[in-house]
Amino acid sequence: MKHALAFILAALLSAGTAHAASSAEILERSTPADWRQIAPENTLYLELPAGRVVMELAPDFAPRHVANIRTLAREHYFDGLAVLRAQDNYVVQWGDPASEDPAQRRAVGSAQARLPAEFDRAWPKALLFTRLPDGDVYAPRVGHVNGFPVAGDPRLGRLWLAHCYGMVGAGRDVAPDSGGGTELYVVTGHAPRHLDRNVTLVGRVLQGMDLLSSLPRGHGPLGFYDDAAQRLPIRAVRLAADVPAAERSALETLRTDTATWKAYVDARRHRREDWFVQPTGHIELCNVPLPVRAATTTP
Amino acid sequence: MKHALAFILAALLSAGTAHAASSAEILERSTPADWRQIAPENTLYLELPAGRVVMELAPDFAPRHVANIRTLAREHYFDGLAVLRAQDNYVVQWGDPASEDPAQRRAVGSAQARLPAEFDRAWPKALLFTRLPDGDVYAPRVGHVNGFPVAGDPRLGRLWLAHCYGMVGAGRDVAPDSGGGTELYVVTGHAPRHLDRNVTLVGRVLQGMDLLSSLPRGHGPLGFYDDAAQRLPIRAVRLAADVPAAERSALETLRTDTATWKAYVDARRHRREDWFVQPTGHIELCNVPLPVRAATTTP
Repeated sequence: MKHALAFILAALLSAGTAHAASSAEILERSTPADWRQIAPENTLYLELPAGRVVMELAPDFAPRHVANIRTLAREHYFDGLAVLRAQDNYVVQWGDPASEDPAQRRAVGSAQARLPAEFDRAWPKALLFTRLPDGDVYAPRVGHVNGFPVAGDPRLGRLWLAHCYGMVGAGRDVAPDSGGGTELYVVTGHAPRHLDRNVTLVGRVLQGMDLLSSLPRGHGPLGFYDDAAQRLPIRAVRLAADVPAAERSALETLRTDTATWKAYVDARRHRREDWFVQPTGHIELCNVPLPVRAATTTP
Repeated sequence: MKHALAFILAALLSAGTAHAASSAEILERSTPADWRQIAPENTLYLELPAGRVVMELAPDFAPRHVANIRTLAREHYFDGLAVLRAQDNYVVQWGDPASEDPAQRRAVGSAQARLPAEFDRAWPKALLFTRLPDGDVYAPRVGHVNGFPVAGDPRLGRLWLAHCYGMVGAGRDVAPDSGGGTELYVVTGHAPRHLDRNVTLVGRVLQGMDLLSSLPRGHGPLGFYDDAAQRLPIRAVRLAADVPAAERSALETLRTDTATWKAYVDARRHRREDWFVQPTGHIELCNVPLPVRAATTTP
């Protein structure tokens, strides 16, 4: 039913018989039911000198990593550590500057230093997957699950988070199971989709992305800062659930399982704004902006 | 013949019967003939307080815009103007802060203030197009021409530059012919391919990209700096041909019409480095890094 409505709406708009709604107009007309509040238990704050980066964790895709990151945050593992790496058109990464030194590195407390990889997951029918029918260079299927960009292979019955701009992952060494969440990175450039299913993604940035993307690039190998003075200190990493309500950044994100979502994607695909003279009629997974706004009601 | 060689090489590597060459190894083994020096007449320097951004202009795709930008540079149009806009995951743009004020704006001298759009071009067989066979969400064909990422439609017989990271374009207003090169932008985020064929691309950044991509983001509409003090002054924009040889940044780029290029792309597609456990076997147009290095010989 939702699909039929979206189809009729799209047909009307394409025929030019109705006002051609832009994506901004579709968001304006959305109702509270079109939005999903981010659970405090899944919200991670990276507190930097210049402000707060807000991330949503994805326990549906990386349950063990998310649980481990919650433990690390609760035990203040990250507080006082630093942003170590800013590689242009790729990633910003933070963690323990002394991670290679057994005598100096920070203890992980009751968390795990390493975890089995969570590169992909089974694809049960119960998951609210909204397909993006425009195709993809890397995977047989792409779409969205609860506001996360995902790719999948129905033949294998596997689904995974996709490395789009703003996605957050757990850095690892050569061994696939050498990550765990003590080093986290954020994608700050063109989607490095070759990393999909090679490293565990754990969530995405919802707010404050520019605090990471505009950092000076590191000039050591892989964009690591070769001078320790260039590292950006981390004041704290906290789970929103552990922060007093008055200090939280309450956010909500557009649901991706609604007719509003389909109309929004369609507006981005066909770009009916006056400025566009040759809309492509297609849209690629990582070029769909995922709307986020301040929560309109408190939970 | 080149294709057959590349195929045999790929087959050998896939079968694991030969050492699996990484893209770095392929570049190390390249010969001088695999590289193309950038012509000084097509090299534009954006001189910022923190250093130089080097761009290659694309007269094959935007001949009138490129000629106009050469004139603007030669008549010092840009000197003393400013970076006006830095929109996260999108573009950085520079031009005349007073462009909207007829009494204050800078005169374009013998250049043109506006030019007919050069959104795409005819696709003659003489052009050295190397197809990327991995497919594309936006266009029936993609590949490379002289080191530039391009998309095309054989049915229409049209070819155009693609909005990948680092591409340089001529900003315009709502009218398609309202650009001309007085305002230039650089893509600093995930490829905004919906802009393809909607705005004239004129070249790409070869060096110094991080001087633009790491700028503080503007917080006005569209990422314009809402406070004039945030604008970054431009010391000068000069054509390399007008700069004394000793002050030039002589660069060369990997040719995209060689067996080396095909082997390089194949290595990026199959990622045979130890770190990768599930290479995708695909590569997307804007995820192919275009190698640039200091020129090994002087012209």
